Amino acid sequence: MYYIGIDIGGMSVACGITDEKFNIIYKDSVPTEAKKPGEEIVADIIGLVKKVMDKVNAKEADIKSIGIGAPGMLDRKKGVIVRSSNINFRNTEIRKLINEQINVPVYVDNDANCAALGEAVSGSTKAVDNSVMITLGTGVGGGVILNKKIYSGFNGHAGELGHTVIVYDGEPCGCGRKGCWETYASVTALIRQTKKAIEENPDSILAKSVDGEVNGKTAFDAMRNNCPVGTEVVKQYIKYVAVGIVDIINILMPEMIAIGGGISKEGDALIKPLIEEVTINMYKKMAVPTKIVTATLGNDAGIIGAAALGVD
Amino acid sequence: MYYIGIDIGGMSVACGITDEKFNIIYKDSVPTEAKKPGEEIVADIIGLVKKVMDKVNAKEADIKSIGIGAPGMLDRKKGVIVRSSNINFRNTEIRKLINEQINVPVYVDNDANCAALGEAVSGSTKAVDNSVMITLGTGVGGGVILNKKIYSGFNGHAGELGHTVIVYDGEPCGCGRKGCWETYASVTALIRQTKKAIEENPDSILAKSVDGEVNGKTAFDAMRNNCPVGTEVVKQYIKYVAVGIVDIINILMPEMIAIGGGISKEGDALIKPLIEEVTINMYKKMAVPTKIVTATLGNDAGIIGAAALGVD
Repeated sequence: MYYIGIDIGGMSVACGITDEKFNIIYKDSVPTEAKKPGEEIVADIIGLVKKVMDKVNAKEADIKSIGIGAPGMLDRKKGVIVRSSNINFRNTEIRKLINEQINVPVYVDNDANCAALGEAVSGSTKAVDNSVMITLGTGVGGGVILNKKIYSGFNGHAGELGHTVIVYDGEPCGCGRKGCWETYASVTALIRQTKKAIEENPDSILAKSVDGEVNGKTAFDAMRNNCPVGTEVVKQYIKYVAVGIVDIINILMPEMIAIGGGISKEGDALIKPLIEEVTINMYKKMAVPTKIVTATLGNDAGIIGAAALGVD
Repeated sequence: MYYIGIDIGGMSVACGITDEKFNIIYKDSVPTEAKKPGEEIVADIIGLVKKVMDKVNAKEADIKSIGIGAPGMLDRKKGVIVRSSNINFRNTEIRKLINEQINVPVYVDNDANCAALGEAVSGSTKAVDNSVMITLGTGVGGGVILNKKIYSGFNGHAGELGHTVIVYDGEPCGCGRKGCWETYASVTALIRQTKKAIEENPDSILAKSVDGEVNGKTAFDAMRNNCPVGTEVVKQYIKYVAVGIVDIINILMPEMIAIGGGISKEGDALIKPLIEEVTINMYKKMAVPTKIVTATLGNDAGIIGAAALGVD
């Protein structure tokens, strides 16, 4: 039997078919034509699924389930994408639409939750039952895994870890609050912090090294070039990341936390000082009980986690 | 069959015996002689348990379990109170000591967790499976209930909800961090905020109404006497409480949150503006999905929750 996992992103839709151990056997993708009506986007996705099934000669009867990870607000029970910030889904009945053409159980969940489940079933947090994945990207996404299942609260909307206030009355957040963790620990935040430091220190190595756009790597690169300004930006950014990590430990006490998203590619340059900062902040100086690691599956986490939604 | 629940506090130890529906049939208490060696405190507790059992003519064979809620750090598996800030427990083997005299299964858990479980089995959150209880007291305690069981993470230390930073680099906290929710939303914090307002506004009704010690009621009383200064203190305090409540909703999405502790006695004067403030802060203006109520069991919550530790 196979599982199919679909990861719907703002730029592209990826679809993978996996074996029962969630190894991806084949995958493919199509661009997300985000402005088209939701039903037409789903038609593109169905075409992609059929193509992937054909490629490995899989029939309906060979597929245990189709799982979908999507950004935005979902109705898991009904299999509907209620709305999505960047893609034109509006109460799009994706389960019904797929089932009209492919008669296989369809599950939907949040993309951040799927990435967390993917890491939990075959990535960085595979060894433990209870874990949290934090995605440091355009926003700060989170997924909570308890007993190898996504924890999503009574209504499916738990795990909005990026939307917890760490700076009272701080930077305005897209969610409507001020000072959310996301507004200090996302890549977007790091870019803002980097730009501010450049403006304030026009003669720094950081400022002089910028060739084109500032991105999430700019300050890390300057740090590697021994720029004190870049080093300070990274140091402060990591403090902000650590505050939220310690909060998660104090609330949920997961056995592992995996850090994903673009910035996680910095590897030890991020993780080592992050663990140091977490250590300083532990409750009454207790040892850090939670293992903090970088996610290992990259973009495949979403596909694999979506595939694993169909596990009983 | 009966259950026995013990609530160890800094001032007294309460012990109750309940029926299978966790109605307290009889309860009694002894003062906590907090400075005595832990083993002697346990001897007092054993005496209390025996007295309570005698009172209802219960034999060992009639008791399903003895549950203990204690402040501080516990080893649930071993049945040991590792340490407690205000009581002289140091690796006190309370299960072993009780079992030397009373041969009944003994369970231990954190006092805040027990209060949350008590409310969940027969108090304010009885109607739902997933709930959180927040105790606004000397500190801010929390207990997370998932599927009617205490959620305590892989090592038993989850649910430290008061120790999440809401003010980056804010007031120093006993846990070692700065700006924890507890340092803004506890009764201790409200008293500090009230005293500051009194100092800054010596001619206010608030300042003039103080007769003796400032306590958690002082600002609420001034508000009821139409004092603008007292009203502002309460308003700001409730904003701080709300920040943490919204964070908990965004992370855990419980069906209900119960507010306990001394300040919860304010009832609607606390809960109504709190719900308004939570509403303003909900993710993208969604309706508040979580029902927020005052806890109803008062001090009995700890006894009942401790008793319910023995449920399979």
